[in-house]
Amino acid sequence: MIVAMQENATEEQINGVIEVMEESGVHVHRTTGAMQTILAAVGNTAGLDLSKFEVLAGVMHVHRISAPYKLAGRAFRPEGTVVEFPNGAVIGGQKIAIMAGPCTIENRDQLFAIAASVKAAGGSFLRGGAYKPRTSPYSFQGLGIPGLELMREAAAAHGLATVSEVMEIAQIGPMLPYVDCFQVGARNMQNFNLLRELGQVRKPVLLKRGIAATVEELLLSSEYILSGGNYDVILCERGIRTYETSTRNTMDISAIPVLHKLTHLPVVADPSHGTGRRDMVAPMAKASVAAGADALLIEIHPNADKSVSDAAQTLYLDQFEKLVKELRLIATAVGRTL
Amino acid sequence: MIVAMQENATEEQINGVIEVMEESGVHVHRTTGAMQTILAAVGNTAGLDLSKFEVLAGVMHVHRISAPYKLAGRAFRPEGTVVEFPNGAVIGGQKIAIMAGPCTIENRDQLFAIAASVKAAGGSFLRGGAYKPRTSPYSFQGLGIPGLELMREAAAAHGLATVSEVMEIAQIGPMLPYVDCFQVGARNMQNFNLLRELGQVRKPVLLKRGIAATVEELLLSSEYILSGGNYDVILCERGIRTYETSTRNTMDISAIPVLHKLTHLPVVADPSHGTGRRDMVAPMAKASVAAGADALLIEIHPNADKSVSDAAQTLYLDQFEKLVKELRLIATAVGRTL
Amino acid sequence: MIVAMQENATEEQINGVIEVMEESGVHVHRTTGAMQTILAAVGNTAGLDLSKFEVLAGVMHVHRISAPYKLAGRAFRPEGTVVEFPNGAVIGGQKIAIMAGPCTIENRDQLFAIAASVKAAGGSFLRGGAYKPRTSPYSFQGLGIPGLELMREAAAAHGLATVSEVMEIAQIGPMLPYVDCFQVGARNMQNFNLLRELGQVRKPVLLKRGIAATVEELLLSSEYILSGGNYDVILCERGIRTYETSTRNTMDISAIPVLHKLTHLPVVADPSHGTGRRDMVAPMAKASVAAGADALLIEIHPNADKSVSDAAQTLYLDQFEKLVKELRLIATAVGRTL
Amino acid sequence: MIVAMQENATEEQINGVIEVMEESGVHVHRTTGAMQTILAAVGNTAGLDLSKFEVLAGVMHVHRISAPYKLAGRAFRPEGTVVEFPNGAVIGGQKIAIMAGPCTIENRDQLFAIAASVKAAGGSFLRGGAYKPRTSPYSFQGLGIPGLELMREAAAAHGLATVSEVMEIAQIGPMLPYVDCFQVGARNMQNFNLLRELGQVRKPVLLKRGIAATVEELLLSSEYILSGGNYDVILCERGIRTYETSTRNTMDISAIPVLHKLTHLPVVADPSHGTGRRDMVAPMAKASVAAGADALLIEIHPNADKSVSDAAQTLYLDQFEKLVKELRLIATAVGRTL
Repeated sequence: MIVAMQENATEEQINGVIEVMEESGVHVHRTTGAMQTILAAVGNTAGLDLSKFEVLAGVMHVHRISAPYKLAGRAFRPEGTVVEFPNGAVIGGQKIAIMAGPCTIENRDQLFAIAASVKAAGGSFLRGGAYKPRTSPYSFQGLGIPGLELMREAAAAHGLATVSEVMEIAQIGPMLPYVDCFQVGARNMQNFNLLRELGQVRKPVLLKRGIAATVEELLLSSEYILSGGNYDVILCERGIRTYETSTRNTMDISAIPVLHKLTHLPVVADPSHGTGRRDMVAPMAKASVAAGADALLIEIHPNADKSVSDAAQTLYLDQFEKLVKELRLIATAVGRTL
Repeated sequence: MIVAMQENATEEQINGVIEVMEESGVHVHRTTGAMQTILAAVGNTAGLDLSKFEVLAGVMHVHRISAPYKLAGRAFRPEGTVVEFPNGAVIGGQKIAIMAGPCTIENRDQLFAIAASVKAAGGSFLRGGAYKPRTSPYSFQGLGIPGLELMREAAAAHGLATVSEVMEIAQIGPMLPYVDCFQVGARNMQNFNLLRELGQVRKPVLLKRGIAATVEELLLSSEYILSGGNYDVILCERGIRTYETSTRNTMDISAIPVLHKLTHLPVVADPSHGTGRRDMVAPMAKASVAAGADALLIEIHPNADKSVSDAAQTLYLDQFEKLVKELRLIATAVGRTL
Repeated sequence: MIVAMQENATEEQINGVIEVMEESGVHVHRTTGAMQTILAAVGNTAGLDLSKFEVLAGVMHVHRISAPYKLAGRAFRPEGTVVEFPNGAVIGGQKIAIMAGPCTIENRDQLFAIAASVKAAGGSFLRGGAYKPRTSPYSFQGLGIPGLELMREAAAAHGLATVSEVMEIAQIGPMLPYVDCFQVGARNMQNFNLLRELGQVRKPVLLKRGIAATVEELLLSSEYILSGGNYDVILCERGIRTYETSTRNTMDISAIPVLHKLTHLPVVADPSHGTGRRDMVAPMAKASVAAGADALLIEIHPNADKSVSDAAQTLYLDQFEKLVKELRLIATAVGRTL
Repeated sequence: MIVAMQENATEEQINGVIEVMEESGVHVHRTTGAMQTILAAVGNTAGLDLSKFEVLAGVMHVHRISAPYKLAGRAFRPEGTVVEFPNGAVIGGQKIAIMAGPCTIENRDQLFAIAASVKAAGGSFLRGGAYKPRTSPYSFQGLGIPGLELMREAAAAHGLATVSEVMEIAQIGPMLPYVDCFQVGARNMQNFNLLRELGQVRKPVLLKRGIAATVEELLLSSEYILSGGNYDVILCERGIRTYETSTRNTMDISAIPVLHKLTHLPVVADPSHGTGRRDMVAPMAKASVAAGADALLIEIHPNADKSVSDAAQTLYLDQFEKLVKELRLIATAVGRTL
């Protein structure tokens, strides 16, 4: 942390700031310039609240000069994390993984048709929602455990791993037998109690970026899980909220290479939520692979127009299978397989 | 809901859309123009997912023409909601209420000094955090129940009502004896399970707007609580995330009059989180009262610079007491009391 | 400027950065910490492009520690700038000024009725558009010089100063006889050639913040005018673009106190463009005065619903006159007059 | 345009709205529902200001149901526009074009080295800045015409077409001999007078999206040029402003397929400005091609670190040539050439 004092800061103000810094447990190096004095904090600054120093008398600006996360940082595991699943699938290696399924698990026929399609396309993950966070209390809220039982059965029939969203701590235990990967939705990215609890679990966690979260905040959230000893965290870009309304969210494709630079954790792209529009899923899936995504998460449904949720962004099975073929060509072009 | 078809939509496409609309449980009125056909849905459209219709063949745009919330709508209670508290305080009437306290409850001395200051200034609510959602897992996480016990005691000594943040369902029961008002933080605004549970409680809920939430989404979240039968919901504007970085958040003062137009629920302004800077709290508190806020939520601390959290935005007690005097003048200028 | 090197930066990288810094004309102070090396630039860094240093090998972050503007900075004129007008009005002093008028000058009857209303309400500035920047090429584009002649005449009849928007350099000369203050619209806030030319003029300039401009960018734009020797610059907050759609723009009320802290230039608030909705103009005008605005800019029209532009945000004359009375009470409450 | 009346709107209010609609030159179709009355406008609504109707008494919402632009709409030229250049290059066809050059033209050696590199890589366009819009008045402002002379000479030596930014109307004439394509920068996207003037020119215009412009606003701006009879407009996505700070702008890759759906005009991607970081240019260039971009605009410099402007986002020539080879593989994967 660097504290830049105002040009006219008094010695008394400077000493006041030094005192507060030292009370926070850091050592202070002072550089007195012709115009401005600069105070550099040396020591463990990861837990410091920088804004606290910004309002001290005589302070101009405070800057963080080291990342506020540790375990998630690239330097912690420079070779990159590869997350392995019971069905042999991996996320984070040279091969790009395909995760697909319905927004909401509706019934056996729907789910088995989807699982067959995922398998046929070469995917390894069946994703489906059993607990649904809905903005309106008047919307359908999910099948719960019976839905997860269906998912486990359909996945087993095709050698797929399962992924489903966990919305609160109490669901973790009951979900354990049914999911190979817990998904934390965008709205829960800063549900820190849930994250801490998932740090105690020994199953991978797919952590979605909140719609207004910065890349740094996403990494800080992953740190909650990692610091509990669960190192199998997969990050997911799924669109952020901006002023543009032609797509439901603005998919921040650049977050993919930015994350690869900052962290060792694998990065998944979700072009379904990223755009909210079926006709934009294919180009954005391609862009994601070209930009370096380690996996794709795609919503599919045998009768997409009649999906009970997210219909607008859900692909029909034939659209999905055609897309995966096209993605394979892009993967090859960037030196990977799919 | 209005579905505007593309200019060149075929009869087959139009009939296809009508069919999906009718399956969703609404009646359809068709207007065939020279250029364009328009389909209006008649019936209960509150739970409809509009985007589902946007991707049907031949559709140009879909527009919602009635609000997606019911109980929160102004029309439900045109005279406005007045929330009453055991200590006689009210929020939503002609009198503007002051809620103040520390970001984090630290110890007895801190809290009793604050409670005395709130009372001296004419405030009626003591607010303090016992469970802290922190972006970094390496930061202090709150005192829990012992902190709430302190708060109840300090509040009782001065006839104040208590407010504290609830972060998950499991905390509701244990918190009940200690809080007169549950606060739902910005990060939990769309934690729908928590909201639904709070709908079953018979204590007021102060619901903070998420940092990327629209006014409509805030109202939909309040609907979760209202639909459980808990009508004592207080909404809170506390700053939204924008591209501007000179303040931590951009306080959306216009949300105050917009909410008063759309809903009967009272509106609180939080200039501490709204700006994140101590020197901006006073002007934004004044602006909030001028714009029609029903209450203010202000972070204060006897030794603000050394507050364990949110130091940058926390007022010293004398700053707070001076501010409340100034706010009283503004309240009078807009025909209210404080 | 502070350059924080990566923890593992080599001596060669550090020396490379020092070399580029010195070539940019600054002296370098090096602090070698146990973990990290920090390079501080001493000298004139106002024109430096910081991002240039960010991509040098071994660099972690680059931070600006002094403001990139000089003449606009508070320190340049700590007592604050007061802009004076030929009719005796001032902006920037203890008295809050009222500027009002139609979005577009339409005809003599309209304009004279408006000028009379401005005068009756106690305002000192008549503002009207003669050149209109319209998003659609199919919309009305303004009356031009004949409109300005009408404005000068109507203003003279009531002792008002005139304000009108200049859209390009070629309009400056022809407009000179008619305007007492040039307005630079939000879309031209970074039209640097226009700004530079206005720096040569000896009439005040009202500079509107762009809809996606930061406070710092607004100040940098004002620096273009100031550096030409024209010190009579008035800044204007008129709403920024965010994800929220319940108002056309989100009025950033906090920009008013933030600007007062950073600069000596007076600050005007435009609640008409700030909200885009007639029913929000009054509460936001009040909030602006409470937050410290030095003047208000309000769109008014004798037949607001039929205004050829901006009808939705334009007040009727009686609404305007009533509002100014209410604002006077707020001005008194914050220790000012109006 | 659809006007949805409030549920309790009176007959008088409904008739009032109908009257204002008819005065605006449209016919009105009325649908009286059990709950709500809906008024549909029939006729030319392209120039209508919708917000004008939103504030009329009894109105709930107003919705546009046809696009506010005509000539830019996909339907105007369903087969897509192909822009041709004197050197035989085209933008908009099956082949993806490469446009590259320095942010600022500095000197002969710099520019000739760059032109040779563009040619060697298989590019057809040399882009360089002679007039520079700089946020700080203390930064270098460009070489002007002598710079353009150099650019024409360097381009001619390698059979390249030239592109340079025009900042104001007065520059159009002097620039004509030197440029094959006028670039309108992001800050001038809504400089409507400049756009109108460029509509009179018979050279292609590359129109950059403003940093806070919606896709619809970009199309409305292109309409200004098209409506003057200049149909050779090329649109450019170059990043928008969001809350995320890990990249200078957030490149909206989804704008590429969205534009292809809405308009017949070709779409260029600018990953240099889109990210502001050299290390992000390659992945975002690849993503742009995968998403359907018709051309790429890339900043390059033989000594990128010492570029007088935009150094941080400028590629070295060898990085550029390597990137184009990689892009060629992606182009093939999406069925195009480069």
